[in-house]
Amino acid sequence: MSATPKSFLNKNAKVDEQAIESFPNSQKIYIQGSRDDIQVPMREISQSPTLVGTEKQENPSIAVYDTSGPYTDPIVDIDIRKGLDHLRKAWIDERGDTEALEQFTSEYGCARMRSQELEQIRYEHTPLPRRAKSGSNVSHMHYARQGIITPEMEYIAIRENQKLESYQEQDLLHRHPGMGFGAEIPDVITPEFVRDEVARGRAIIPANINHPEIEPMIIGRNFLVKINANIGNSAVTSSIEEEVEKMTWAIRWGADTVMDLSTGKNIHETREWIIRNSPVPIGTVPIYQALEKVNGKAEDLTWELFRDTLIEQAEQGVDYFTIHAGVRLSYIPLTARRTTGIVSRGGSIMAKWCLSHHQESFLYTHFEDICEIMKVYDVSFSLGDGLRPGSIADANDEAQFAELETLGELTRIAWEHDVQVMIEGPGHVPMHMIKVNMEKELKDCQEAPFYTLGPLTTDIAPGYDHITSAIGAAMIGWFGTAMLCYVTPKEHLGLPDKDDVKEGIITYKIAAHAADLGKGHPTAQIRDNALSKARFEFRWEDQFNLSLDPDRSREFHDQTLPKEGHKLAHFCSMCGPNFCSMKITQDVRDYAKNQGIDDVQKALEDGMREKAEEFREKGGELYSKVG
Amino acid sequence: MSATPKSFLNKNAKVDEQAIESFPNSQKIYIQGSRDDIQVPMREISQSPTLVGTEKQENPSIAVYDTSGPYTDPIVDIDIRKGLDHLRKAWIDERGDTEALEQFTSEYGCARMRSQELEQIRYEHTPLPRRAKSGSNVSHMHYARQGIITPEMEYIAIRENQKLESYQEQDLLHRHPGMGFGAEIPDVITPEFVRDEVARGRAIIPANINHPEIEPMIIGRNFLVKINANIGNSAVTSSIEEEVEKMTWAIRWGADTVMDLSTGKNIHETREWIIRNSPVPIGTVPIYQALEKVNGKAEDLTWELFRDTLIEQAEQGVDYFTIHAGVRLSYIPLTARRTTGIVSRGGSIMAKWCLSHHQESFLYTHFEDICEIMKVYDVSFSLGDGLRPGSIADANDEAQFAELETLGELTRIAWEHDVQVMIEGPGHVPMHMIKVNMEKELKDCQEAPFYTLGPLTTDIAPGYDHITSAIGAAMIGWFGTAMLCYVTPKEHLGLPDKDDVKEGIITYKIAAHAADLGKGHPTAQIRDNALSKARFEFRWEDQFNLSLDPDRSREFHDQTLPKEGHKLAHFCSMCGPNFCSMKITQDVRDYAKNQGIDDVQKALEDGMREKAEEFREKGGELYSKVG
Repeated sequence: MSATPKSFLNKNAKVDEQAIESFPNSQKIYIQGSRDDIQVPMREISQSPTLVGTEKQENPSIAVYDTSGPYTDPIVDIDIRKGLDHLRKAWIDERGDTEALEQFTSEYGCARMRSQELEQIRYEHTPLPRRAKSGSNVSHMHYARQGIITPEMEYIAIRENQKLESYQEQDLLHRHPGMGFGAEIPDVITPEFVRDEVARGRAIIPANINHPEIEPMIIGRNFLVKINANIGNSAVTSSIEEEVEKMTWAIRWGADTVMDLSTGKNIHETREWIIRNSPVPIGTVPIYQALEKVNGKAEDLTWELFRDTLIEQAEQGVDYFTIHAGVRLSYIPLTARRTTGIVSRGGSIMAKWCLSHHQESFLYTHFEDICEIMKVYDVSFSLGDGLRPGSIADANDEAQFAELETLGELTRIAWEHDVQVMIEGPGHVPMHMIKVNMEKELKDCQEAPFYTLGPLTTDIAPGYDHITSAIGAAMIGWFGTAMLCYVTPKEHLGLPDKDDVKEGIITYKIAAHAADLGKGHPTAQIRDNALSKARFEFRWEDQFNLSLDPDRSREFHDQTLPKEGHKLAHFCSMCGPNFCSMKITQDVRDYAKNQGIDDVQKALEDGMREKAEEFREKGGELYSKVG
Repeated sequence: MSATPKSFLNKNAKVDEQAIESFPNSQKIYIQGSRDDIQVPMREISQSPTLVGTEKQENPSIAVYDTSGPYTDPIVDIDIRKGLDHLRKAWIDERGDTEALEQFTSEYGCARMRSQELEQIRYEHTPLPRRAKSGSNVSHMHYARQGIITPEMEYIAIRENQKLESYQEQDLLHRHPGMGFGAEIPDVITPEFVRDEVARGRAIIPANINHPEIEPMIIGRNFLVKINANIGNSAVTSSIEEEVEKMTWAIRWGADTVMDLSTGKNIHETREWIIRNSPVPIGTVPIYQALEKVNGKAEDLTWELFRDTLIEQAEQGVDYFTIHAGVRLSYIPLTARRTTGIVSRGGSIMAKWCLSHHQESFLYTHFEDICEIMKVYDVSFSLGDGLRPGSIADANDEAQFAELETLGELTRIAWEHDVQVMIEGPGHVPMHMIKVNMEKELKDCQEAPFYTLGPLTTDIAPGYDHITSAIGAAMIGWFGTAMLCYVTPKEHLGLPDKDDVKEGIITYKIAAHAADLGKGHPTAQIRDNALSKARFEFRWEDQFNLSLDPDRSREFHDQTLPKEGHKLAHFCSMCGPNFCSMKITQDVRDYAKNQGIDDVQKALEDGMREKAEEFREKGGELYSKVG
């Protein structure tokens, strides 16, 4: 844990140029809330007009949920050595229930700050931490239960609504009614609705007081489905700079939260760099770092060391902790006959500790102590599924469900402390066994938000597990899972690089969006409708710009039809100029319109064989014009 | 339609070298049926043993369904200028109900054979066609309804069983019970079951008497879910050689059937090359070629010209025809207010024809005439969904379902002629609206096999539509769809190249396999179980070899851990040597075993705090050995 990676020096750190590029035909807009400093960012994509003959019909701009933070705002100066602005600072200060500390509470944290050896890689502008004043509880659940609507809650309501009212005015909310499974998504999200959902424990706002840089967001099944991207180094690979780059890259493409799962060198410093530059909540699995501190010997872990690690990370600003407190001693034997035993790293570490000591897990026995830490920084629990199935064979088994029941018990305890909780879920589950996971989670954990990894619906496609899992993720998202943890093509094979991160993100944006459509989220279908209209009208540029990945859609199109003129063409490479179904339909429609009739139905009702004759002639003309 | 593509000359045509490479640790095996010439190919993947201390425990070979044909059999000499062996010739001859013709029946086909200009690209060994003897019906449905079990049916039963008995003997059939939706998959597929399903119309065997090269396969919801790959040139791109290459590439990765959707130059010759070299059934959309014959003017199409095209293609050996006979004149107006109108090429061509002439579609009015052609060659119907939705907005609308009802009516007519039928389905459908598509198809079309394109579950991800559609495909496959038409990443943007074809195929193999697991197909979970066991035991090579794409899984692993020695290592790049959850579980298990106790449960029951102490010491040792 000593050597400074050659590739990274504090003073040379630069933002990844790709992270700050503007999206095509897009502008950053900010919707103002009830006070000046509530400015909710969105990305607005403008469209070209539809040409009907010589007449231009305007097409509306489409605002999309934007996780990319200030990086994509051209007027913001980005310097990753200084970090992002402290957007929430005033809100936290105003509440008057926190105090600034003069140094880090964690012994380890202090030691890292003192070490000269780390100077080259240490984040220069590390802020001093805040903590709740003695006796205070600064969790959003606590506020919510007091009936307080925080600025964060209002911010979230505006963000989730996605300019709904503007679409209403423009009559753009045509959509299929969804089919939820107990989700109750209102037509308009109000700040009061946000508060109520958080108070009931059905949603969480991960927002550590030491992470004032974040743009608030919410995780709950009555909101848009969110996705998480995992990054982090391992003993075998990668540097701090790469990890910061992966974070900015992940949020550019739509990661709603990012987990730093580093298990390699300089975990503390890597995390600091990530948090100071992250506009999205950061999650961690503190046991990973704790294990590094005991040189990988699970049996040497102690509550005291773990406690210090929690405080170290909480004071850096980690927004949620995965804690595998449901891996109880008595459940471990239930895994011995599994095909793939315990595949969760946190779960297996704790299993090893429990067996070594033949004692109940200290995470379980000290759970209330952990709650005491969580509530003074507003760190949310992500109760880890340490016994999740690692193969189709092990899906939904006794070990998995025993742990889930314990997670329900722990949820009740956390809620007694007004500490926010989400529940982690599998894993590897065949399609027909997915729904019961959601149902059992809602029942056992009293509707706390579910946060699942996939699930992967088959084991036979390493290299394509973003796809095996997107199938399961879309389904469980539709059933009510609030956040989907992405899986990249490298799952089971290696650590993801930048390309893999993007592939995983886009895949999970698809799954989340498919789920939003399934649930009938009021604004979800707007983007589908706009893109399909653009596609049908051969507005190629608009089609690219409205897509989740404008770069790839344009690149794929240009592989066969590279010329700029082709992007104005009323055909594509699949069928060629004389043979395009979309073109033919448009001809049919144009014809009906040109004949001065409302639609083709009426034309047919008029029984106009004669006009059909005209159409045939006219049709020939239309064709030759294009061909 | 004149110039010879420079890139292709008959005499230089060579098989793609990549198509004939062996798969790692795999061998082609043939299971013999009741007669010598029923030799059913499979690919058997052998595994390395599990090391338990110094003891080796053998792992069984896993046989997988193999669509790649003779190309992957190293003892077969491949020459694409001569085509594949006529595997089914004897079976067809024996039935004594067909006759060899002295020339092609189709005028167009004869003209193409005579043209000197085409000599350079024409397939040299074009066989003369066969046709049913006058008054005979040579469809597999006809045989099935006569109670005849053909060699094809026996072949299929063996193929679908996938060495089930051998797995039974080895006690390898551990699996979750599935959850079908009315599917009735027997534990063992018998030839009689195959016959019965075909007789009832619930499954089809696409097997034109003029395509004796095929290895018989079946499409029906009580069998393994199949996938189709589309290939074919367009006016803008590609040559004959590329299309043959795409076909051999597609079947290598698992395409169960291939559709040649060429709309460019030399459609007749391209198809001949493909069929003569294809061991899988070939489908086409004859209206595409018919339209080329009238220079793209839909209104100039006639029944006579279409009829000649059907016969031309049937005598070449096309196994199934997509016929958009459900696009009736009166349904066209139902599409006028759609977001994306008519997106099926076949559908839009017929719509244009109907409107131009203000007449009912000649495909509908001549449907019985078409049946007469189908039954004398055993061409199956794939009743096209010309009015399928091209966007989420248009899903499940009146036009789509009106057509589906007509397809049901046409199915009844085809069955009166004992002609095999499958039904094409959408398209773009959000998740919650998928199931009703399957239910309505089963009801309206009397359980004829459903064959869907995806469906895509959102419109917002051009460039990733293999994924948006794999979600829908897996779900509808689980609900009962018999064959899934692949979607490549290029969908909506361009024609797929070889990489796209592979990406589409693997994605759809995943969807089909996930569906097989969901339905509880008896042998489906064997490969998952084997791969997961290999993964858990760090048998990296076995993990790669058992995967759908051994090349990619190996490549991804090697990107971070390239050395050969790493493939024997008990760790991977995600966690590094000291930190592997799988390793920890294995330690736990080993420990229990070393202590001479059955499992850890018993250990715990024995209340052995003392032994836990030993484990702690021993555990430390185990770790240091690896690290």
